[in-house]
Amino acid sequence: MWWRRGIAVIYASNEQSGKKVADVIKNKGYPVALLRYSLENVEKLWKCYDALVFVMALGGVVRSICKFAQGKDKDPAVIAVDDEFKFVIPVIGSHWGANDLAREISEALNSTLVITTASEQRGITSVEELANLLIAKVVNVNAIVKVTSALLRGERVCVKGISSLPPQVEGNYVIGDGCKYSVIITDNNRCDDENIVCLKPLRVTIGVGSKKETSPKTVKEAILYVLDLLSLDKSRVKLIASIRESAEVASKELGIPFRKITLEEINSFNDECLTPPSEKLTELGLKGVAEVSALIAGGKGAKLILRKIPYKGEVTVAVAIAGE
Amino acid sequence: MWWRRGIAVIYASNEQSGKKVADVIKNKGYPVALLRYSLENVEKLWKCYDALVFVMALGGVVRSICKFAQGKDKDPAVIAVDDEFKFVIPVIGSHWGANDLAREISEALNSTLVITTASEQRGITSVEELANLLIAKVVNVNAIVKVTSALLRGERVCVKGISSLPPQVEGNYVIGDGCKYSVIITDNNRCDDENIVCLKPLRVTIGVGSKKETSPKTVKEAILYVLDLLSLDKSRVKLIASIRESAEVASKELGIPFRKITLEEINSFNDECLTPPSEKLTELGLKGVAEVSALIAGGKGAKLILRKIPYKGEVTVAVAIAGE
Repeated sequence: MWWRRGIAVIYASNEQSGKKVADVIKNKGYPVALLRYSLENVEKLWKCYDALVFVMALGGVVRSICKFAQGKDKDPAVIAVDDEFKFVIPVIGSHWGANDLAREISEALNSTLVITTASEQRGITSVEELANLLIAKVVNVNAIVKVTSALLRGERVCVKGISSLPPQVEGNYVIGDGCKYSVIITDNNRCDDENIVCLKPLRVTIGVGSKKETSPKTVKEAILYVLDLLSLDKSRVKLIASIRESAEVASKELGIPFRKITLEEINSFNDECLTPPSEKLTELGLKGVAEVSALIAGGKGAKLILRKIPYKGEVTVAVAIAGE
Repeated sequence: MWWRRGIAVIYASNEQSGKKVADVIKNKGYPVALLRYSLENVEKLWKCYDALVFVMALGGVVRSICKFAQGKDKDPAVIAVDDEFKFVIPVIGSHWGANDLAREISEALNSTLVITTASEQRGITSVEELANLLIAKVVNVNAIVKVTSALLRGERVCVKGISSLPPQVEGNYVIGDGCKYSVIITDNNRCDDENIVCLKPLRVTIGVGSKKETSPKTVKEAILYVLDLLSLDKSRVKLIASIRESAEVASKELGIPFRKITLEEINSFNDECLTPPSEKLTELGLKGVAEVSALIAGGKGAKLILRKIPYKGEVTVAVAIAGE
């Protein structure tokens, strides 16, 4: 699963074109936000979404990027689509999924896909991407270059510490031993071998929202569905949080600690990256339960990594990285 | 005449592709520089050339732009071409000629031209571009918006103070009176009417290099050829400078003041935007005569606006804006 924090579509003058692009993305099953262009909007979306799709001329997109870009490992993927859908252009983050997303959009809009990255770099998951997929932190960033070069040369890179690779991984990664260059998934905080990149798994928290009458069984299914989407073992979950008793029962069955959240906690909590609440929730005076619960459970410094996703129309599940 | 300060081609990994693009530009008659990508090179070229053509992936081009971009009216046009010549993409400066230059390059390389600007903005010379073509300064920048909007709506904009428009001008500009919005070419330093953009003509200086034996007649022809290229009346020239007597004679015939330059002056002068000298000049221990002469004549703060261009293989002429 990709674009866990969602995709934002930003249009300049042509709202209809923006809406069409947002629909394409929604139909692919990705969480999507649609906003009119303004520097304030771009600034907010920049930090909160995994990809920004601008429906406007490339020059304006580039000027916006320049205002907010911080570095390859920090910026969202950025794609430009012209008002008339003639071109779909991955602008930054080509190897972080922008090329793939642009391909999906261009196929749906029947536009020309403008790929400019060298072909030998295609179809290889970078080490940073792998870390992202595994919800892990790179311990020794300086070792990335050597391992990446090996991948670009087509050499095998061994992956140790996990039993299987997420399905999105491309390139000559192999589970096991015997390579010159390796990626190790480990809880160590120090790694000195420059032929080995160490990835430290991060602890996650899960927030659950559901109807009052939803059974613990359905909640449990929803949680397992999301863990599967993320290729994540349940041992990685530090805490599940919810206002619902059924979630408490489900957590117990899963053997994962649970924290009951109160409506007061929900309503006094704020985070700039929360998905704007639906009309229904706003009517109820709520700002959304799953994302807020995941973030409260994660403590100070927690960060949303999966926007709430619905399950069978009665459960929503969101995931955060726990703060320290 | 466009790209007076030349076009720089910057390649990342594929020198051959870079060379091919540089050849295309050279064949169009534009001054061209070819360099390998480095941040230092981009920084230097950014200030000295009218357009940069990057032969590399778009992501890297955008990261470079972000390092040096200062604003629409200050940045060079930037074009990205991928290593395999599949796409030619105007990145910034679309309405400052990037679209046109990209079209020329894409036709020569048989690449897809990636235009993303709205069609209603095409074929209209912006007020800033007009000022640039007329070698003039915009006195009241705040009036530009209204005049530009009128042009985009297709309304007539009157131009006063000149008898004809440079041939490159597109859009509904008309010489004469009777429009709601106007552009006036004037020596005034204040303009308060917000329906009128005032352009103040800048004074230029001309530098001449030639063979020892070149006749004053040929030098005069060369100077008139350049004034014609720039659609510039000779009254706009403050000073002609050269190490050659024939240039002094030619200047006298043209009624333009002349300054004799010495070899010592040439060799002790430096400006970061000078065209690197040819091998022949380097052999002679010279760093180029025409550009340096034009800049010396322009005094402190002078800026090169036309790289030296050859005339009949025996004269070179360069043009600068005089400093104050």
